[in-house]
Formats: sequence, C-alpha cells, structure tokens
Amino acid sequence: MEQMLVQNAVKKVQLLPAVNDEHGGVIIELEKPMDPNVFHNMLRSSLRQWKLQGKKGVWITLPIELVNLVETAVKEGFWYHHAEPHYLMLVYWIPKTENTIPENASHRVGIGAIVLNEKRELLVVQESSGKMKGTGIWKIPTGVVEEIDTEFLEVLAFSQMHKSFFGKSDLFFICMMRPLMFNLQKQDLEIEAAQWMSLEEYAAQPFVLKHGIMRYIKDLCFAKAGGSYPGFTPVPIKSCFGDPMSYLYFNGDGLVQETSAIHL
Amino acid sequence: MEQMLVQNAVKKVQLLPAVNDEHGGVIIELEKPMDPNVFHNMLRSSLRQWKLQGKKGVWITLPIELVNLVETAVKEGFWYHHAEPHYLMLVYWIPKTENTIPENASHRVGIGAIVLNEKRELLVVQESSGKMKGTGIWKIPTGVVEEIDTEFLEVLAFSQMHKSFFGKSDLFFICMMRPLMFNLQKQDLEIEAAQWMSLEEYAAQPFVLKHGIMRYIKDLCFAKAGGSYPGFTPVPIKSCFGDPMSYLYFNGDGLVQETSAIHL
Repeated sequence: MEQMLVQNAVKKVQLLPAVNDEHGGVIIELEKPMDPNVFHNMLRSSLRQWKLQGKKGVWITLPIELVNLVETAVKEGFWYHHAEPHYLMLVYWIPKTENTIPENASHRVGIGAIVLNEKRELLVVQESSGKMKGTGIWKIPTGVVEEIDTEFLEVLAFSQMHKSFFGKSDLFFICMMRPLMFNLQKQDLEIEAAQWMSLEEYAAQPFVLKHGIMRYIKDLCFAKAGGSYPGFTPVPIKSCFGDPMSYLYFNGDGLVQETSAIHL
Repeated sequence: MEQMLVQNAVKKVQLLPAVNDEHGGVIIELEKPMDPNVFHNMLRSSLRQWKLQGKKGVWITLPIELVNLVETAVKEGFWYHHAEPHYLMLVYWIPKTENTIPENASHRVGIGAIVLNEKRELLVVQESSGKMKGTGIWKIPTGVVEEIDTEFLEVLAFSQMHKSFFGKSDLFFICMMRPLMFNLQKQDLEIEAAQWMSLEEYAAQPFVLKHGIMRYIKDLCFAKAGGSYPGFTPVPIKSCFGDPMSYLYFNGDGLVQETSAIHL
C-alpha cells in the first residue's frame, strides 16, 4: 500500500495524464497549454513507464491551440493518425509486434434524391456552383437534401468511386424520398433553380441520355413511378456488445418471403 | 514584358512554390526541409500576393519530416484539414465569404462475407482478437475477406452505425461471395479457426438468435440458399466530367423488368 502511494507520488511529477483504452493502450489527455520541454520530459518518462507495463498503442489528441507540442511528439516517434479542423490525433506503438491500430475513415458519402409528386413529376434543380454551373442541366438534388422537406423511403442503388478525393473513396446513395411539401423553396447558396418536371421531359435531356449514371437514375425514376422496383429499406437493429444504434438496409419483401417459405 | 520579368524575380525570392487548383485556390508544394523563420516570411509574402490576386483556398501538405513548420502555419491562421500517417494537410481561406472547402472523409467501410459452398454450407470463422475472442462464436468472415479466395457476387444489405469511431460513421456491407477454393487456409493473425458449417448448425447458435444483425444475416443466408433474394449487383458506369471509374450497385432484375415494361 505504501509502495503504491510512493509510486503514485512519482507518477504525479513525471507522467502525462492518461486513461487506459479497451485494447491495452493508453490515451493521453491534454487540454491546457504546456511548455514543449516540460512536455518532452513527461512524454519520455510516460513512454518508459507504459513500456514496462506492457501497454500497446499510445494515443494523443492535440487541440489546435497546443500545436507547439506536435513537433516534440513526432520527434519521439509518434505519427499522424487523423485530423479534424480543431485537433490533430497522433499515435505511437510500443510493442515490437506489427501494429493493429485501426485506420482512419476511408470514404465520403453523398446522396442523390429521387422525389416524385402525385402527378408523376420529378423534383429537379440547376446548380449554381461546381461542375454543373451554367450548363442548364436539370438534375436530381444531390448532397443538399437536408434543405428539402422530404421523408426518406429507401435506397434504390449506390455507386462507388475510387480515389476521388485525397485518395479517399466516394460512396453515392440514390434514395427514394417522399415530398412533404409541394411549394418549392430553393436554397440560394448552391441551387440556381428548382421545379417539378415530368419524367418524359427530364429523360429527354441529352446529358441524361449520354452519361452512364444519369441514364440509370432516369431508369430508376421510371421504375419507381411504374411501381415495383424493390430497393433497400431500413430497420433499426439492436446493438451488439454495446455498439451504438444501427440501421440495417435490405430488400424487405425479398427477405420475408424467402425466410417464411423456408421456416414453415 | 520587362515589368513581368522584374515581378518574377521578386517572386522567386519571396514566395512559396505553389500551383493553382481548379477552384480558384493555390496548393503550396514543399518537399525539402526549411527553416521555420524563412518559411514564416515566405508564407506571409505569399498570402499577401494571393489575396491581391483574389485567390480563395490555400492548401499546404506537410510531410511528417517537415513537422517543424506546422506551428508556424497554424499561427498564420491555417487549420487542419486531414492527416494520414505520413503527412498533415492544412488549409486557409482568404476571402471574407463563407468557406466552401470540402470536408474530409466521414465514413469507414467494412464488409461481411456470406460464402456458401455447393453443399449448402456456410463459411464460418472464430476470431482470435477483438470482442469476439474466446467466445467460441462461429461467425461469417468480416473485414479480412481479401484473405479468402472468393469472387464478389452482390451486396445483400448494409448497415449504418453512427459515431462509432472518433465521430466517424461506419457502413458495413453484407456481401454474397462465391468460393474459389474449398480447402480452407486460415489467416493466423486474426482468425482462430475456420470451417464450413451447415446453415442449420450455424443458425442454432444462441448468439445468432439473440443479436439483431446476426439474426438478419442468418435470414439472408437461408434466403440466398433458397434461391431468389435479390441484392444489388454492380455494373461499371462511364465517367461524368472525367471522374474516375465508378460502379453502380442496384437490383438489376427489378430495374430491367420495370424499364422494359415502360419503354415498350
């Protein structure tokens, strides 16, 4: 007991504040400004201690205000894990074995909305920025769907594009939405114009006929207006091992029919 | 002409090497080590010049070897955009208008493989690390599918889990795979055991019956063994605006039937 108190007293002087993670590693928690030399000494002592304790990964999140400590951490062997505008996360691997540190996010996700009204008209927009600017092309709303008052129904398809953005992959989900209002109020920052358009008029645009994904979006619109194309609909699923809430998206009709046929 | 030459000569002394991007911004290109004070002076001169030229975003990628320049960039008003193990990208917005800098990747993507053999048996594994370690649970292979010799057939379902990893979202795709070899060779690092198991034996595991997503995976296995559950299959699509190669995943049967019915 006495030995533990002594050890704790020593720790208080030399070691950085840290908590254990679930995978045998530690997470350094720094919030207040610190002199780089003081940080350097505490970091070296802490790494020695954690090595003796058999710790594996060492994580440190540096708020952008503590940018003066980044160089010190890197010189001690830390490398970058990921960054967001207000912080940089660095990581270090103590054991001699291969590191099992999980990778950073790899994908950006976008959505395109197929919104049909009761007159079989499609919601289309012209964009005021980006590659579509000034082309006069009427397209389905993409990426800004939160600006439109709709209810999500199902995922009809998705596309995968490799290495589109700093080596990350893009996933693009084409979704069926139900309009909740029919008087359109366009969002001015990115949308030049918005209107309801008949499917035939939409499909007759040369651009829609020419480009691969546009042609499929047009086919999906006709299929949904026709009635029976089955997409993937979501059900909430119970968590495993205390994971956060999830949704599973699948072809509900296809699954129910098959499983009841088999289980009966 | 003479004036231009003079201007260029001045530039050579004061400004950082940079190229224009497609969105009215500039990308600073640094590779060699640089003294932070020299970098500071050049950065300030460059920003003044780019402001006069009406430039918008300023990007700088700093290899981890140039970590000594990070603090200087942040003190001049740059913030973090993203990081990978070997570099940190910072960004600065010159105009007074709201910045339109695209966000970093937001999702991590995993996959789970349903692999059935000709005897209606499922490929199952026990994991040697992570939460499943030591539980004795036989599960479908996840995340390590490149280690198994299979051919991708279709996406049967996907789940979305919010905020699972440093605030990023996880997408998990449940895929149908065709086995290309039937003698299993397990990957030792993460897999404790691997075998072919009858669907009935797999489905009888208490864990499979208890947990939400496991129950749906079991239902999907039975549905596919039964024959007719339609998932999303990929087709390559032609690029728009010189984008990289993409694939579109959708219910091919559903789409073909519907569109031909409408177009005929």
